[in-house]
Amino acid sequence: MINSVGRDIPDQVLKDTGMKVFQGSRARNAEEYVKAAPKVRAWIDPTESKMVADIHEALVKCGIKDGMTLGFHHHFRNGDKVVNMVMEEVHKMGIKDITICASSLGSAHNPILPMIEDGTVTGIQSSGVRGKIGDAISNGKLKGYAIMRSHGGRVRAIESGDVHIDISFIGAPTCDEYGNCRAVGGKSDCGVLSYAVVDAKYADKVVAITDTLVPYPNMPASISQIDVDYVVVVDEIGDPAKIATGAAKPTSDVRKIMMAEYCTQFVVNSPYFKEGFTYQTGVGGASLASTISLGEVMKERNIHMSVGIGGMASAMCKLLDEGWIGKLADTQDFDIDAINNIKTNPNHIEISGSEYANPMNKGSYVNRLDVVVLAALEVDTHFNCNVVVDSNGMITGAQGGHPDTAAGAKCTIVITPLLQGRIPCVKTDVTTVTTPGEDVDVIITEYGIAINPKRQDLIEAMKGVKLPFTTIEELRDLAYSMVGEPDPVEFGDRVVGIIEARDGTIIDVVRQFKPYEYKD
Amino acid sequence: MINSVGRDIPDQVLKDTGMKVFQGSRARNAEEYVKAAPKVRAWIDPTESKMVADIHEALVKCGIKDGMTLGFHHHFRNGDKVVNMVMEEVHKMGIKDITICASSLGSAHNPILPMIEDGTVTGIQSSGVRGKIGDAISNGKLKGYAIMRSHGGRVRAIESGDVHIDISFIGAPTCDEYGNCRAVGGKSDCGVLSYAVVDAKYADKVVAITDTLVPYPNMPASISQIDVDYVVVVDEIGDPAKIATGAAKPTSDVRKIMMAEYCTQFVVNSPYFKEGFTYQTGVGGASLASTISLGEVMKERNIHMSVGIGGMASAMCKLLDEGWIGKLADTQDFDIDAINNIKTNPNHIEISGSEYANPMNKGSYVNRLDVVVLAALEVDTHFNCNVVVDSNGMITGAQGGHPDTAAGAKCTIVITPLLQGRIPCVKTDVTTVTTPGEDVDVIITEYGIAINPKRQDLIEAMKGVKLPFTTIEELRDLAYSMVGEPDPVEFGDRVVGIIEARDGTIIDVVRQFKPYEYKD
Repeated sequence: MINSVGRDIPDQVLKDTGMKVFQGSRARNAEEYVKAAPKVRAWIDPTESKMVADIHEALVKCGIKDGMTLGFHHHFRNGDKVVNMVMEEVHKMGIKDITICASSLGSAHNPILPMIEDGTVTGIQSSGVRGKIGDAISNGKLKGYAIMRSHGGRVRAIESGDVHIDISFIGAPTCDEYGNCRAVGGKSDCGVLSYAVVDAKYADKVVAITDTLVPYPNMPASISQIDVDYVVVVDEIGDPAKIATGAAKPTSDVRKIMMAEYCTQFVVNSPYFKEGFTYQTGVGGASLASTISLGEVMKERNIHMSVGIGGMASAMCKLLDEGWIGKLADTQDFDIDAINNIKTNPNHIEISGSEYANPMNKGSYVNRLDVVVLAALEVDTHFNCNVVVDSNGMITGAQGGHPDTAAGAKCTIVITPLLQGRIPCVKTDVTTVTTPGEDVDVIITEYGIAINPKRQDLIEAMKGVKLPFTTIEELRDLAYSMVGEPDPVEFGDRVVGIIEARDGTIIDVVRQFKPYEYKD
Repeated sequence: MINSVGRDIPDQVLKDTGMKVFQGSRARNAEEYVKAAPKVRAWIDPTESKMVADIHEALVKCGIKDGMTLGFHHHFRNGDKVVNMVMEEVHKMGIKDITICASSLGSAHNPILPMIEDGTVTGIQSSGVRGKIGDAISNGKLKGYAIMRSHGGRVRAIESGDVHIDISFIGAPTCDEYGNCRAVGGKSDCGVLSYAVVDAKYADKVVAITDTLVPYPNMPASISQIDVDYVVVVDEIGDPAKIATGAAKPTSDVRKIMMAEYCTQFVVNSPYFKEGFTYQTGVGGASLASTISLGEVMKERNIHMSVGIGGMASAMCKLLDEGWIGKLADTQDFDIDAINNIKTNPNHIEISGSEYANPMNKGSYVNRLDVVVLAALEVDTHFNCNVVVDSNGMITGAQGGHPDTAAGAKCTIVITPLLQGRIPCVKTDVTTVTTPGEDVDVIITEYGIAINPKRQDLIEAMKGVKLPFTTIEELRDLAYSMVGEPDPVEFGDRVVGIIEARDGTIIDVVRQFKPYEYKD
């Protein structure tokens, strides 16, 4: 069945999953539904302990069995050790048919690969899957469909009951013996535990795994004792060097600096740049540069940001400390400055994944965004974006908050180079749609800026602004004129992955990877 | 059917309510159950506003109708204006058969009385009911049973689905246009919104009512935008003079000072008085005096409290500021010092009602108490306590956190004078059981101290301690010798109220009030 971004979703996939096709970003607005709920155990007896000896005992006490869904968060990013240590034990116990429902997975989880091959893991649900797991899925090694969800979409899926997590494992930088988890104060500080909050509230069993047990009460807690069944102490939950990078140095890439400057000029000339505006940006080189240059204009014109939202890095924290931002609503810390900042600045505040981006709660923070600045692997002439599948057809990225912020923000700006090497990033049709064009307002490349024709108000507002405005078709044509029109990616027949829209419908599917064959 | 504290619960009540009789404080430990969940509406469209013109519009948008259950919190205490203003509008609209499910009700809500009489309100569920509503219930004017629940019991009832709230009204000292509520910063500061958290999470519709609309985002929020449907601005949600009293002056009542001193000596000679102990106390004169004198011993002996739990007043805040307490886990602020303290001391932290005392989550703060110091209207020779019904049989008090903290604490101390006027407070049997004797360890009166014989360990620990130890029977006998044995209270036949144990079973019932008749 063809969905509203023109993708043909195979009937078999709809039948297998019971899912529906994407009908537009706001199609489910005002829909009423009963939230999901976990099956919990009452801890009335105050003499009972939650401490268990090791992960094995936690798994046994939680009743681990074949076919269960296990939850994980990705706040330790490439330094995460929790997924692997839990799954190694699951594997050792001979448990099969596990679905991993993680807020994201990356190359840190390459050791899971053999467990996909031997049927320990048959389902993967994640924001995205970089590294060997992405390759394995693309190559058809996972028994079930991989489901790629945005950060808001994962919370929605759990809170609405589309997925039920049997046991969630919360890597906790610090934890007390009754399960109060904080993201700071230990050996593996990660700043916030935002994406784990939904796991704590909706999984039947919740296990806190820490390498730093602290005296009771470990408060204010990101994850509260009232949601935690067991506490396990291990040697190391993460590799601090890989959890957060050092503060990124401003990029010296001329192309990125140019795109950042275009972006800043666009923002400051838009109707949204006014006292109290709200803003989110990513942490790529161009985004970071754009935050820095935007900050300079804020100071020149004495304009303050009321709140900065989402993943945090040094540039936003510096503006907060200097008083140019009122609050940071933080869901993830990308560098050491951000982790230190949340410990020291009381206006730098952790929010949950649901607060951040769940499209089907009573209104998330992304709904309040004036401007979001995003990146993409590919954009197309319909303004659709692709952030998960590379131009060869391999799963290699993650949705993150991309579709969430794009849907919520009044002005969604996507920065992308026109070309990556000899591959056009602006195309007639993206390989895979992850964010629908209806939610994307502006594409900024180093060769020009295209405003979505839907946004005549923005086109009007930019009249007289000295920026290289063009059309998306012209950008596409320019790219094609430079490197030629790419052949359509060829895939195998089997659907291996589902790109779930944030509202739980199917916006696209990913088919099995097929190595490029040179034609005669 | 006779329950485990020997009270005969009428079969008709069990049949009418589907409830079971109390079987002991830990009877439901380790029970598994699926949590309740609200029916919510998705707010995907970021352009929609949550602001409504007045309470009438909020009620209409929430679909108010006959038979609904409405939720309220009591953080404005005797200064609350929210219950009355909502109920006046409900009354004006001609809605009938409403159940009020409040965290507590007091004399501020006397204006509800005519609505009980005319059938607007037919059900009341509350921690207790002081004032005219208590009289009305005792006099049989409420159509249904009044259900009195502890603070933990209310959260349990809502989280387990025993009661479902259709619309909750959250009086918010400050709120932004998207529903983020804080307890501080407005005209009617109340310090925390702990007891309202469960309403926000489990009611289908949630209305924030504020007199101080603040710029977005009002964070860190006690109640988050993701749980709020509508925001109403009114002139006044509370009377600040009645929300919090000025800091209580130390009592000059010799009897209270004596009991406080006994209490302190008991605590400091108990095995629980050691570095890092945890503690809760009430805010009566004796409790306050006991906190002050306990603080002096802490300083003398260099012993720190790791966490103070529950309702807060000046004495605990002072010890926090001076560094003798590590953290305050706050659920309610009784005086202006406590409200100011949570704004200024980052170790003074709001916790939710579920975190505080829900017996059937995965472990609440009361479970971690070493010592709790409580008061009571009556205690009996089985160590049962009564905090709801006076010795004439009239509903006049509230369970509050009494049964919760008693059940959780390693050492539960109840301070009560031997007599109130010419009424014995230590009796063979309390008029109504609200806290079971199995959870009460020590009774302190000005005439002597009785340790529950169940606690041979405490009796042993007190050997050699110079305090006037006696038995509970001797205290009762002494009271009776002074004022005579009171005649049993006579009640009418009709059951008007249910005293719900914190685990949702029936620990006692309250029958209709019958004026005392002098016998020939």
